[in-house]
Amino acid sequence: MTEAAKIAERYIDLWNETDAQSRKKLIASAWTEDATYVDPMMKGQGHSEIDALIGAVHQRFPGFSFVLAGAVEGHNDRVRFSWTLGAPDAGPIAHGTDFGFVAADGRLKSVTGFLDQPKA
Amino acid sequence: MTEAAKIAERYIDLWNETDAQSRKKLIASAWTEDATYVDPMMKGQGHSEIDALIGAVHQRFPGFSFVLAGAVEGHNDRVRFSWTLGAPDAGPIAHGTDFGFVAADGRLKSVTGFLDQPKA
Repeated sequence: MTEAAKIAERYIDLWNETDAQSRKKLIASAWTEDATYVDPMMKGQGHSEIDALIGAVHQRFPGFSFVLAGAVEGHNDRVRFSWTLGAPDAGPIAHGTDFGFVAADGRLKSVTGFLDQPKA
Repeated sequence: MTEAAKIAERYIDLWNETDAQSRKKLIASAWTEDATYVDPMMKGQGHSEIDALIGAVHQRFPGFSFVLAGAVEGHNDRVRFSWTLGAPDAGPIAHGTDFGFVAADGRLKSVTGFLDQPKA
C-alpha cells in the first residue's frame, strides 16, 4: 500500500469511528494540531472542532459509514481520494472527493471536501 | 457564471495562450505573486516559473489546447474543475482535475493538478 493509500484508509477509519475516546486518538494521530477541514456544508480547525463535525455527521446519519471509492492518488505532499456514504442495507446517499495536504510527519494539515455527482 | 466558473475559465484561457506577452499578463491577473502550482510531473512558484512550465507544455504538445470538462465547483476559498488536453482533429490525450485556493483578491494562490482516468 502506498503512503497516500495509508493516509486515506486511516482518514476513512476515523470518520467511521463512533467511540468518542477512540476517535479522539485517531484524530490526533492523523491530523496536525492546527489542521483545517472544509467542505460545502461545514468547516473546522484543530482536533476538537474536527471531532465535533465528525460527531455531527454520526448524529445526522446513525449507522452509516464511509467507504473509499476508486484509487487513492498522491504526489508531492498532496493526496486525493473519493468515497461514498451509505448504510449496510441501502445504496450510497452521498459521493465525495477529498483533497489533502500532508505535513512532514505524515499527518494531514488541510483537507477540502467536494461532493460528487454519482456516475450514471 | 459563478465566481468559481470565471476563475476556471480564466485559468484555462491562460494555459492555452501561446503569445508570450499576453500570457504573462494573464498570469499576473490570475495568480498571486507567490502562487504555487504542482502536479505529478512538474511544479513551480511565482509568475515566471508558472509561465515557464506552461510554455514547456506548449513546446511538448504544439497545437493542443485545454478544455474545461464538466461543472466547475467552488465553496469557501476553494475551487475544483476538470479538463481535457487535446488537438482539434483528435480525441483528448489527457484528462485531469485541478484544485485551487483562491486569495481574497480573487487570484489563485495554490493549484494542485491530478491526472484522471478517462471515463469508460
